[in-house]
Amino acid sequence: MTISEKALSMHEKWNGKLETVSKTPVKSREDLAIAYTPGVAEPCRKIAENKEDAYRYTMKANTVAVISDGSAVLGLGNIGPHAAMPVMEGKAVLFKEFGGVNAVPICLDTQDTEEIIKAVTWLAPGFGGINLEDISAPRCFEIEERLKATLNIPVFHDDQHGTAIVVLAGIINGLKVVGKKKESCKVVVNGAGSAGVAITKLLLTYGFTNIIMCDKAGIISRSTQGLNWMQEKMARITNPAGETGTLADALKGADIFVGVSAPNIVTSEMAASMNHDSILFAMANPVPEIMPDAAKAAGVRVVGTGRSDFPNQVNNVVAFPGIFKGALEGRAAQITEEMKLAAAEAIAGLVPDDELSEDNIMPEAFHPQVAEVVANAVKSHIIRNL
Amino acid sequence: MTISEKALSMHEKWNGKLETVSKTPVKSREDLAIAYTPGVAEPCRKIAENKEDAYRYTMKANTVAVISDGSAVLGLGNIGPHAAMPVMEGKAVLFKEFGGVNAVPICLDTQDTEEIIKAVTWLAPGFGGINLEDISAPRCFEIEERLKATLNIPVFHDDQHGTAIVVLAGIINGLKVVGKKKESCKVVVNGAGSAGVAITKLLLTYGFTNIIMCDKAGIISRSTQGLNWMQEKMARITNPAGETGTLADALKGADIFVGVSAPNIVTSEMAASMNHDSILFAMANPVPEIMPDAAKAAGVRVVGTGRSDFPNQVNNVVAFPGIFKGALEGRAAQITEEMKLAAAEAIAGLVPDDELSEDNIMPEAFHPQVAEVVANAVKSHIIRNL
Repeated sequence: MTISEKALSMHEKWNGKLETVSKTPVKSREDLAIAYTPGVAEPCRKIAENKEDAYRYTMKANTVAVISDGSAVLGLGNIGPHAAMPVMEGKAVLFKEFGGVNAVPICLDTQDTEEIIKAVTWLAPGFGGINLEDISAPRCFEIEERLKATLNIPVFHDDQHGTAIVVLAGIINGLKVVGKKKESCKVVVNGAGSAGVAITKLLLTYGFTNIIMCDKAGIISRSTQGLNWMQEKMARITNPAGETGTLADALKGADIFVGVSAPNIVTSEMAASMNHDSILFAMANPVPEIMPDAAKAAGVRVVGTGRSDFPNQVNNVVAFPGIFKGALEGRAAQITEEMKLAAAEAIAGLVPDDELSEDNIMPEAFHPQVAEVVANAVKSHIIRNL
Repeated sequence: MTISEKALSMHEKWNGKLETVSKTPVKSREDLAIAYTPGVAEPCRKIAENKEDAYRYTMKANTVAVISDGSAVLGLGNIGPHAAMPVMEGKAVLFKEFGGVNAVPICLDTQDTEEIIKAVTWLAPGFGGINLEDISAPRCFEIEERLKATLNIPVFHDDQHGTAIVVLAGIINGLKVVGKKKESCKVVVNGAGSAGVAITKLLLTYGFTNIIMCDKAGIISRSTQGLNWMQEKMARITNPAGETGTLADALKGADIFVGVSAPNIVTSEMAASMNHDSILFAMANPVPEIMPDAAKAAGVRVVGTGRSDFPNQVNNVVAFPGIFKGALEGRAAQITEEMKLAAAEAIAGLVPDDELSEDNIMPEAFHPQVAEVVANAVKSHIIRNL
């Protein structure tokens, strides 16, 4: 059976992948009186007196909502809320299996920005955090920013920040392998959607200064026409030399390429035009921007992809479970840029320096400490800033 | 320790009572590829082609949302969405423990009718049913009616219909014990909120013709002032003789009393004024409208309460888990009046005729077959009407 066939068969066998389970037995009249009426009135009263007690007596302490409108699901595009459910259930499964965090998939029957913001605001009280997922750009930026401004629980669009954190972790280790400093690197990010924007922002925060974003029409500069509001914003803080031209032009002399774009759009010639000791992340999935063998043959030293069948897999699962675990345990009101940097450094640190190599810059998805280490990094940051 | 203390301690120990759990292991790269990308794309594609496949490949098949705005929680009143969570989590626990149905508690941060309707409509796609809970009257009536009209999954306000179904089950058995026919009974329902209205409606549907509703100001008739829109509607279909006066006036000669109102408002004299072989449900909780001993001493033959420490407990837990189990398995688009009658008959039927007595008209909450029997009754009804 292929993976697709196995997936279909498993999903049908279980009618989905997630279930809700009681943590406490309900086998006797007393159990019932404790879990439900009349006993349940007591925690209700406590929370009515002090809303913070919701973190003591309810699942809010350790539960996130995984929310999508089904507008940008995997490589499948705008397939709507019903068809997005298997992905959101899967995400919820990973939250629990990797981070011990409860997660509830919620697929919204609206793709209107204002309505999504209202829906999430209204359903938020029972949750300790909101993981936004597979919402198309540029709506995802406004939705996340406005929810962060009004909700007092962490709101995190994983397609943006999870990806950015893991890419940064890979770049931190990649630079160690090739022996370069961030300050002197030219970085090209191809794809100016949710992931590309977030990666660029986080790399700037980390200290890269020379980043060029490209999209379908080539290099984005202050004079590029037809940009959305977020891309215009990015144009003002990237491409300091004001380069123009195609992706091929951008890649000439680049030290780092990050692709969150489309299959096969980087040729061997383009890869060969990069600076010596270059690093390339080709994360279009399942077919990357350039195949690792071709990139290596063209002289790229470190290559990462989104695929598990090549070395250096960039997989969000090493980030989001630990980040929410740490944010919930540390009772963060937000996941800040500094917490994202701390998470990226922690992920990078999971590969010991003496094991680092061109083909080993990322920790395994199943690395047994990853969620714990990331959570602790996030929590230390919270505690230091209390 | 008191039940309240035990409840507080249990809720704190677990940080709430409910967790989300994966039905499928995620221990290897292949597991990950099947539960998440790339395998998950296949069930997504199937559902994108045919929305009905959501019932094959996602938890929608067997999951309800338990939704409240925290406006009318237990006897605690309008304590808001955060403080309502322990009750909604508890309800979710009972759904799973008694009916095998997954349930997700969602407490809404709005008490505006239009906003609640929007919120529920938007979050509905991933759920197979909506259980509304602890929403104050008369808003609950409009919210439920409008959601039923627009959603194609069952919407069920348990405070109304769960209670009505269990009361009807008790009355069916109570009439057998006292040897009366529904057609000749005078019924008094005290309390014209969500439960009182739903009980009255279901008793009318079942075939009672002479029902008098009372509220704080006494008997509700066509000439009563200050009624809300639902009470006005009820005034037109109840009290056929146009009686006026107090609850005490209504009770004179009544065969059945159903109280969903306030503690101690039925005196011994009022109970004694009922017809011979009367039936009385005093469901104010924890202190009933009249204590069972007092009612019995005044000549009432069958007495039920909401309490587990007296005979004949009226407990919704014998109804809602099985009703949703049956509705989900039978893929009902709605829970109809006929399905509610079928459920009530099934619940009544769980007490065999030869075991029926004044103190044994209701099945135990922990009766091992109750959810199965209720679900099958609901499903038979669905199948018969396909």
